[in-house]
Order: sequence, then structure tokens, then C-alpha cells
Amino acid sequence: MRLSRYFLPTLKEPPREAEIVSHRLMLRAGMIRQESAGIYSWLPLGHKVMRKIERIVREEQDRAGFVEMLMPTIQPADLWRASGRYEDYGKEMLRICDRHEREMLYGPTNEEMVTDILRVSVRSYRDLPKLVYHIQWKFRDEVRPRFGVMRGREFLMKDAYSFDVDKEAARRSYNRQFVAYLRTFERLGLKAIPMAAESGPIGGDMSHEFIILAETGESAVYCDRALVDMPVPGADIDYEGDLSPIVEAWTARYAATDDKYDAARFAAEVPAERRVTARGIEVGHIFYFGTKYSEPMGALVQTSDGSQVAGEMGSYGIGVSRLVAAIIEASHDEAGIIWPEAVAPFKVGLINLKSGDAATDKACEDLYGRLAKAGIEVLYDDSEERAGAKFTSMDLIGLPWQLIVGPRGLAAGEVEIKQRASGERVTLTPDAAIAKLAGRGNAGNTGI
Amino acid sequence: MRLSRYFLPTLKEPPREAEIVSHRLMLRAGMIRQESAGIYSWLPLGHKVMRKIERIVREEQDRAGFVEMLMPTIQPADLWRASGRYEDYGKEMLRICDRHEREMLYGPTNEEMVTDILRVSVRSYRDLPKLVYHIQWKFRDEVRPRFGVMRGREFLMKDAYSFDVDKEAARRSYNRQFVAYLRTFERLGLKAIPMAAESGPIGGDMSHEFIILAETGESAVYCDRALVDMPVPGADIDYEGDLSPIVEAWTARYAATDDKYDAARFAAEVPAERRVTARGIEVGHIFYFGTKYSEPMGALVQTSDGSQVAGEMGSYGIGVSRLVAAIIEASHDEAGIIWPEAVAPFKVGLINLKSGDAATDKACEDLYGRLAKAGIEVLYDDSEERAGAKFTSMDLIGLPWQLIVGPRGLAAGEVEIKQRASGERVTLTPDAAIAKLAGRGNAGNTGI
Repeated sequence: MRLSRYFLPTLKEPPREAEIVSHRLMLRAGMIRQESAGIYSWLPLGHKVMRKIERIVREEQDRAGFVEMLMPTIQPADLWRASGRYEDYGKEMLRICDRHEREMLYGPTNEEMVTDILRVSVRSYRDLPKLVYHIQWKFRDEVRPRFGVMRGREFLMKDAYSFDVDKEAARRSYNRQFVAYLRTFERLGLKAIPMAAESGPIGGDMSHEFIILAETGESAVYCDRALVDMPVPGADIDYEGDLSPIVEAWTARYAATDDKYDAARFAAEVPAERRVTARGIEVGHIFYFGTKYSEPMGALVQTSDGSQVAGEMGSYGIGVSRLVAAIIEASHDEAGIIWPEAVAPFKVGLINLKSGDAATDKACEDLYGRLAKAGIEVLYDDSEERAGAKFTSMDLIGLPWQLIVGPRGLAAGEVEIKQRASGERVTLTPDAAIAKLAGRGNAGNTGI
Repeated sequence: MRLSRYFLPTLKEPPREAEIVSHRLMLRAGMIRQESAGIYSWLPLGHKVMRKIERIVREEQDRAGFVEMLMPTIQPADLWRASGRYEDYGKEMLRICDRHEREMLYGPTNEEMVTDILRVSVRSYRDLPKLVYHIQWKFRDEVRPRFGVMRGREFLMKDAYSFDVDKEAARRSYNRQFVAYLRTFERLGLKAIPMAAESGPIGGDMSHEFIILAETGESAVYCDRALVDMPVPGADIDYEGDLSPIVEAWTARYAATDDKYDAARFAAEVPAERRVTARGIEVGHIFYFGTKYSEPMGALVQTSDGSQVAGEMGSYGIGVSRLVAAIIEASHDEAGIIWPEAVAPFKVGLINLKSGDAATDKACEDLYGRLAKAGIEVLYDDSEERAGAKFTSMDLIGLPWQLIVGPRGLAAGEVEIKQRASGERVTLTPDAAIAKLAGRGNAGNTGI
């Protein structure tokens, strides 16, 4: 993509209302624009990152055996009356009356609708498990939206649902998502730690938050370093097999957010040299809630002995739009964003140090064409800005690699490559530069 | 995908409320489910088709030089007051009050928001053209929603916008979309004819509807057969070059929907043997509307001579969710849907005629694995239904190819392939079947 054809309205001044670094950087890098409080347009650069995250989330949901569908944003109020949550939700639910005065709402989540869909189409234990997910915009009318897309009102969420005949089967479905989450966050370049969360009605061990570690995270977290170092299952993991040893290994060690932190337990269970105190951001939450919706809504299935029981259900959320900000919180420096390769909007930023100079333009065009041909996503800064402004802007938007081309280097047959994360620069021939950039595959995108 | 793992709630009885064939077939084939009047859940089979359509639409927008972004579904009312459309839109606009009593709405389209975004970030003719699009859910509160997703209230639309310094440049942007639409609909397996539509304020030749021919279409259309036979530009078309000869060729011949039909002109301009009278469905609409929004909203740019002018704009819509139904209207028979390969949810349906029979199960598993390995999307009916029910269901959901495996054929070393569109069946060895199915590439998916 040529910058001249792109739409990348970067800002020089960090906007005053932005309180956290990801919000400031997303606005400065021209990734988002606020349309109303907590409601954003995703400009091309931000949109591209969000889609890459979405794709990885989708691939790992598919791999775990969940089937994609899509429920609408607008739901009828009666559905929520059936579960008893219509009143409970309070003002956070955006309530709407249509032209015929029917009461509707903008869905904040989809347990009711999924239960209703499965209620009418699933009859027998033979049809189970049913494992579905969708990636759809949600709305929560936060009283004071802030922190940019980290806590927006309109946000993109992946929510998955499982429907099983009994608790053991439900646990197996829960474990699928547990493992899928470990894989998803690792592929996104994040270190995520599952932490036991608010007990559901069934038991304390069946709800987990996934917290990523980030210096600028929203809350303090405490965990055993063994969790930070624990290897994540590979792409060849058999989701039909027994996943419980993996889940047990990840839940046997101490890990807690500050609202559940117990200093005495932390000291007793974790040797001093393995005690990690850090900041974290919640990026996923999985729940096993049993028959909480299936029972009041009458979502029954026949068991193998012929009796009728309410389905055992779970739901599993990942904040897709929130992750864009969370990744920035976890990966940035003074100069701007540092994208992990798997979600970088472009892999390479090509900087023409002297646009208008015939030889430099020609060399850049040639490199641009060759990179594109090699299947490498490249953003070519073909503008007439000064070199300094180009460097600043490229550091700000955080592409993993910069390919820097100027008349002086070219005269010596050389170009420069800079790695954004390390700041490391190497000088090499154009051919070697292409080979180096092409050699670094998009492993993060293939899931292998 | 194994049917036992999928979620495909087909219906035996065509539902009474469905008035048109696509609506009936989508409900029967378990593609959609109505949640409220004009609001649908997209079940896995329907969702998969919609995503394939979306992908082709996206690829052709990108190819034409438009850049993807994403605007939110909820918009502030004030934006629409600035253009004067807030009152004009009447009850079709879904109006919302948030918890702070701010007036919002669920966007039916995005001219205002795009104009507002470009107004603050584009200053000079040097930054133009700006060509952007998004694919987002819209809401129009139809008084009587019907015809399923053909005229739903919540629907997925691709809307693109162009912003140029003068009329000539705006025309070039318009032509990009004109050509992109020809390519998009052809790749979707449709024959689409552009027809001059309602004149905008500028001139009658700058708005076109794209109408696909379908026996069960919503309105009568009249055109020159030369248009039906006219070749569509290839994937190598140069969008930076002069596209006007292509647009001229497509607009020089007579074509009109019934509200604009002029029998005398039709007879005078089209020789009798080339007069086509058919039924059509609108699937796209492109507009050049000049300064209709940029002027009241103050979206100004500096021209090369230093003066300030309002930007010349156009907008370009494709109904993505509507296309799912439109394709069915154009491609079905008594037994069900007939998907064009480019948008088929799966390429092959594998039918096990005797689930539970060890040799048949084994042969099916083997074929299923080999097809998957060859990158062919296959839906394996591993259920215990009777063979007849499996045939009926597979014809209904309309996958392009059926691979039929039973004990009798296997004993003779044979399986059967049925082409859904022609009904043609051939008997061949399993190896030859794989080769045949793999040989038929997904050309429609690659854009080549």
C-alpha cells in the first residue's frame, strides 16, 4: 500500500482526553476516531489490526471444534424477560423502541438468544455437544466510557456457547475453550495467564479470566512464575482427546487478580524466587453456568435413558476490539507502538528518504514491487515529508520492520533495515534486504 | 465438517410466512432463523455463504483501490442534523436515546459520518482522491419487513465513498466502482446489468443500479441482449488507467427497470432478436452526488490554484446479506438451492449411504480425510438418516458436488459423483473421484 493512496490521518499532538497509553497511541497513529462517547470509527490502520486479531481468534475457535454463526445486534426484549435478565441489566442495556413500539435492545451478550435457538432445534443427547460462536458488535451503555476502545460502548466480541447433556460433557467443552484461549493469546504475541474468577452457581473452579501481563495494565496481578514460563499447547493438540491434564497444570499454580489476592496464600504456595507481582489486563473470560438459562427457558434434551434434562451450558468471551488496545499496552515504547508480527497492519514500512529524486524513487518502486510479489505486506511512505518526520511516523505506527532507502546508501549499493522492537539497524544490499524480510515468515498468521 | 458436529437445523415443512423462494429455501436449509420481524440469526450454513460473498466483495473493492475501514453502527443524531437528513428519513430511521438522553440512531447509511471524517483530515487536492469503504450492519426500520433477508431491517451492506477535488476526478472514482461491480457480480456467478437509475442533482447518467437476472426477480427489466453477452473486465484490469470506454460500452445499450421502461425507445433502439424481457433483482447501487453533503457540512479542500472548494463525492452500495437471497433466486430448482461454486458453503457433500456399516464408514472416513487434505471443503453426512433423506437434504442445501458412497458400489470398487446443477451422475473409483473433485479448482475464489 502506498501511503499516498492510504488513509492514515496521524496526529502530532496526543489528544488531551486520552488517559491511557493505548488510547493516546491509537488516536495519534490514526487508528481510530471517536464518533460519540465510547463509540469509535476504525480507520484503515486500526481496522486492519482488528481483522488480523479476529482471524486468529476465528482460526482457534474453529480448531477447537466450535462452529461459527452470527446473531443480530438487535434483540427482542421478551427474550431477556424469559431469563429474568431484562430488569437485572439496568441502564447498561441500550433499550430501543421500534416504529411499532416493540421493545428491543442492542445485545450486550447472547446467552438468551443461543439458548432459544438451541431449544427449538436440539432434541437428543445424540445431537450434542453443540458448540457455536459468533463475532459480533455488542453495546454496553457504560455510564462513563473511557480508556478508548479498552472500555468502549460499542465493541466487538467473540462469544462462544456450549450446550451439553451433563456436567462431565460440559467440562470437556469448557476445557476446549480453555486451551483455545491459551493458543489464541500466544499467537497474538501475548502472555496470558488464566486466573480463577467469580464463582458461578456451580463451583469456584469453573470460571476463569485470562489476564495478559502489561506494565500499564489496569489491575495488579500475582502469580507463580511457572505459569509465565509454561509452554502453550501446539497447533496439533487433539481437541477430541482428554484436555484435563493441560487445564489442571494451568490451574494448579497460584494466580490471582487483586480483588482475589490473598497475601498469605501467595507466600505459602509460591517460593519467593517465583513470586511474580505485575499489572494485568483482562482479555477473555470463560464461564460454566450449567442450567442457568436452559432451565427457565425450557431448553431440554433427552438423555440416553430417555429422561428430559435441561442442557448444561457455558459461555466464552474474548474482547476482540479491546485486544487491539491491550496489545498496545503490552507492547510499546516512548516512540510509539511495537506490533507483534502476527497482528501488525503491515510487516514492513518502506521509507523513501528523498521522494522526487529519480534514482531513489526508482529503487523504492522496485523494492515495493518485489516485496508485494513475495507476499509481504508493505506500507510505502511515498510522501514528500522530511526524512525525520517519516522516521517519527513509522516508529509511531509500529510496523515490525523498516526498510530505509536514500540516495547516499543507494550510491554505495546499500539500503538499511531497522527492526522496530530492538531498534537494531543493518545495512545491506537491496537483494539481501528482500531475502531477509521474506525469510522472516508470517508464522504467527499460519498457526503452525 | 462432519454433519454430527455441525449445526444445520433443516426444516421439512416450508414455513408459511415465507412468500418468496429464497426465503423458503433459506429457512428450510437451516441457513437463517428469524429473531424478530426482519431480523435474522445467520446459522452456520448461511453465515458461511455470506462470508464468502463478503470476501469477494472485499477483494474487488481492494483491487479497485478503495481502502477498508469500519464505522460504528450507532451514530449521533447531530451528524444527521448537519446534513438535513435527520428529519427527512422519517420512521425508517431507528432512533435511540442513550442513558444520558443523548439522541442517537442505528445508521442506515454513512454519507454524513464519512464526510465528517474526511472534513477534519483532508486538506489539499494533493491528498485526493480518498477512496474508502466499509462492510457493516445497517438498520432500516421498514414498516412491513418481508421476503426474508431480501428486505430485512438489520442487513449487511458494503458502502464505499469517494472524495475528489473536481467532477472529472469524481467521475474516475465512479468508474472504478462501476467496473468493480461488474467484476464482483460475475465472480459471484451472477449476470448483472447496470441500468441508469434515478437522476441525482447532477445528471441522469451518474447513478446506476446493478440488476441481476432471476426468473423470480422482484421487477421486470428490459435490455439489449448484447449486455447479457458482454464480457466483464478481467482481474488484470488497470484501475489507474482510463476506464471510461468500459463504462461507455456498458451504458450505450438500452437497459431499464419497469419504472423507467419506455416501450417505444426499447423497440427503436434494440433489434427485435436482441430484446430481452426478464425479471431482475437490485443488488447494487452507485451514486455520484457531488457536493450534497460536503457543502452543508463544510468538507472543503484546497485546489491547485489555492482556492477552497467543497469535495465532489459519490457513494456505492452492495447489499451483502441481500445477495445471499438474490443468488438463490437466480439459482435453484424444485429440489432446493444450487450454489455457484464461488459462494458454496462447502464444495462437496459426502453422503454415507449406510452409516454404521464398517466398510462404508471406513471408506467415507478415508475420502473425507483425503478431500480435506486436498484443501476441498467438504460436508460429511455421517448421520444415521435413511439414504433417501440424505439425498433430499443434500439437494436442498445445494452443494455443487455430491460424493455418494455405499456398500454395493464399494464392493465393485466404485463411488458415485453427482453434480447438483445438472443432476449428472458418474460412477468411478475413489481415486478418480478425488482427482475429479480436486481438479475442479476454486477459480471463483481466487479472482483469477
